[in-house]
Amino acid sequence: MPEFLTLLPPHIALTNYLDRLRQLEERPAERIPTRQALDRVLAGDIPAPHDMPPFTRTTVDGYAVRAADTYGASASLPAYLRLLGEVVMGEPTALVLEPHTAALVHTGGMIPEGADAVVMLEDTGHAREGEIEIHRPASVRENVLLQGEDIRTGEVVLSAGRRLRPQEIGGLMGLGITNISVRIPPTVGILSTGDEVIPPEQDAAPGQVRDINTYTLSALVSRAGGEPRPYGIIPDRYEDLKEAVSAAHKECDLVIVTAGSSVSARDITADVIAELGQPGVLVHGVSIRPGKPTILALADGVPVIGLPGNPVSAMVIAGLFVRPVIHHLLGMPSQVAEATIEARMAVNVASVTGREDYQAVQLIREGDSFLAEPIFGRSNLIFTLVRADGLVRIPAEATGIAAGSLVDVILLT
Amino acid sequence: MPEFLTLLPPHIALTNYLDRLRQLEERPAERIPTRQALDRVLAGDIPAPHDMPPFTRTTVDGYAVRAADTYGASASLPAYLRLLGEVVMGEPTALVLEPHTAALVHTGGMIPEGADAVVMLEDTGHAREGEIEIHRPASVRENVLLQGEDIRTGEVVLSAGRRLRPQEIGGLMGLGITNISVRIPPTVGILSTGDEVIPPEQDAAPGQVRDINTYTLSALVSRAGGEPRPYGIIPDRYEDLKEAVSAAHKECDLVIVTAGSSVSARDITADVIAELGQPGVLVHGVSIRPGKPTILALADGVPVIGLPGNPVSAMVIAGLFVRPVIHHLLGMPSQVAEATIEARMAVNVASVTGREDYQAVQLIREGDSFLAEPIFGRSNLIFTLVRADGLVRIPAEATGIAAGSLVDVILLT
Repeated sequence: MPEFLTLLPPHIALTNYLDRLRQLEERPAERIPTRQALDRVLAGDIPAPHDMPPFTRTTVDGYAVRAADTYGASASLPAYLRLLGEVVMGEPTALVLEPHTAALVHTGGMIPEGADAVVMLEDTGHAREGEIEIHRPASVRENVLLQGEDIRTGEVVLSAGRRLRPQEIGGLMGLGITNISVRIPPTVGILSTGDEVIPPEQDAAPGQVRDINTYTLSALVSRAGGEPRPYGIIPDRYEDLKEAVSAAHKECDLVIVTAGSSVSARDITADVIAELGQPGVLVHGVSIRPGKPTILALADGVPVIGLPGNPVSAMVIAGLFVRPVIHHLLGMPSQVAEATIEARMAVNVASVTGREDYQAVQLIREGDSFLAEPIFGRSNLIFTLVRADGLVRIPAEATGIAAGSLVDVILLT
Repeated sequence: MPEFLTLLPPHIALTNYLDRLRQLEERPAERIPTRQALDRVLAGDIPAPHDMPPFTRTTVDGYAVRAADTYGASASLPAYLRLLGEVVMGEPTALVLEPHTAALVHTGGMIPEGADAVVMLEDTGHAREGEIEIHRPASVRENVLLQGEDIRTGEVVLSAGRRLRPQEIGGLMGLGITNISVRIPPTVGILSTGDEVIPPEQDAAPGQVRDINTYTLSALVSRAGGEPRPYGIIPDRYEDLKEAVSAAHKECDLVIVTAGSSVSARDITADVIAELGQPGVLVHGVSIRPGKPTILALADGVPVIGLPGNPVSAMVIAGLFVRPVIHHLLGMPSQVAEATIEARMAVNVASVTGREDYQAVQLIREGDSFLAEPIFGRSNLIFTLVRADGLVRIPAEATGIAAGSLVDVILLT
């Protein structure tokens, strides 16, 4: 029996479901080269192996000085300092600043012992050979980065569950961490059902349609950080479906089944999912359009998600439920927020209260702003989403969106 | 000589540069399986090989009827129709509807010849064996999708230059297009310079820092659709740099050089880029922080971009210039818009007028909205971007952003 008998709002359904998935074991890890780890998820915390910056550095081209030697200096009354030499980039320097001395330094280079500030080149002048003029006073630490100012040895710079962007890859390499432990992607079994569905390689006879969901969902799963494993097209018969779903359930970390489109086919899918294992179906039905017949289940430690068979509904629902479940399995913290583009709705869009609607829209630039043009049409074919730049969420309590209203468009990227 | 002698605003610099790149030849194409084409860019237009839907279908479970036979029907005074049989999913049907007959159909299934509407199951009842009751009138085409209603044979469903998202992969497979021509990714040569820079595998002696730019830029190039080709770390010497940049220029479709951090090292980089070929440097200097010393050049048909050496500046500028250049080389139309998250600035942020500033921020959830907390710190180390969720653009004409102001945060994903 479904745990939640009434249709739940999508965010409540998801939160309840993710809560139940907390009991699952942590994903296993593997060690890989950091440079190949873009978009992978860290398996453990990363402590800094040394201070950053690793030595006290200048942030400008100029002269390392003792700030006290420059007090009161001006262009008309410069301070004169003896030039000790130059700090060569990439080498430790043996120079030590005595009072009234200076050393030439380059951006990013080391500051010699005794120096506590750097005067920019443009605030200096040449005096006699071996001597420089300082045209303005420097304060202590001016243009200087202290060793460990950014990060101290042992400080956690990246936490377990962090998905690695280009800057994290660079940051790890900068710390000399060239190999890291990342979580192994969850395998996601994908099953398409329907007696009328045939593989895309085949010619479609009248009454047949080619499989779409296997491919849209595989791509979406890859992007979310999972490893798609397609199980092909299963006929709308209880025994066939039971066998295929059971196999996927044994072999995968998450199973997705797109239901047949008829009521009887949907019933078969629901029955098969319900009998897979404990605790079974947790959510059956979500107050959302498209996608009401969504099923969220947990069967003996493996999450199983039943999606509507229509390709548009399947993709919208997979974005709302499958993606966060994969992130959860990878131990990623829940997303801060989804980026959107603000646009004005081009025409009135009606909606039924009591359920969230997701309306596909095309964005049209109008000067500095955007117009959101709904993609209507009764067909609900995948080309609705092909034409769409994004989706507009119409809240459950709204009866629609008036033309000219500002809306946030969730980009379909 | 630079073509544009004053510092240009970033969007003008980019537009001018992309205009000059229009003369470049179109990228070569390769043929690959559609299911492996996620994020690839189409080399040619794709016409539909057949109508979509390929046959006239029902959108609900119910009875296919002739609408005229149901006029005036109600629950108390039903229309009685003779049941001809069932349209089996996935098979062409031989049924032909005579007046006052009906056929059982399932969602997505074919409509028999003679039928022009479908009555939903819940609006029907069983009468005698072989007969059904219709409880409400159906209008012509009600619950029916006509063949070709969505797409006609030969209609271009996807245009050259389109980057393939999950829904495009699914749409192509649904049309039976299992192999497609996509543009070969441009190879992007990446050169890091600096006498103080060492490979991440090495222990850093005092005065040395490990290479970061090669890795952040490689990751960014991959994400943008290019193929990164690292050329390693080049010392700040004219001859060494000239040799390395010339090699990359011969072998790649785009060359990126991160300049040494000192003024003299930057000058060497600029000289080497200027001498590579015709027309040479088109833009030298952009009114932006971080990233003023940016160089945009075109040398004998190969674009060459000089980036600042600081890892934060290099990444911000690469996002603004390298990414759109790769998209341009792939023939992608310019992006509609960048998705952002609206947030309130947590504190005052100062800015110098006359240049665009990009301020790294962390997003903090506050109920339903977000606070943008600037990541300050003089260090400008890569960990500034590691801590950042996004960037806030401060327009050139602004002297800063007041605490509490609404800002659009460009997510660093």
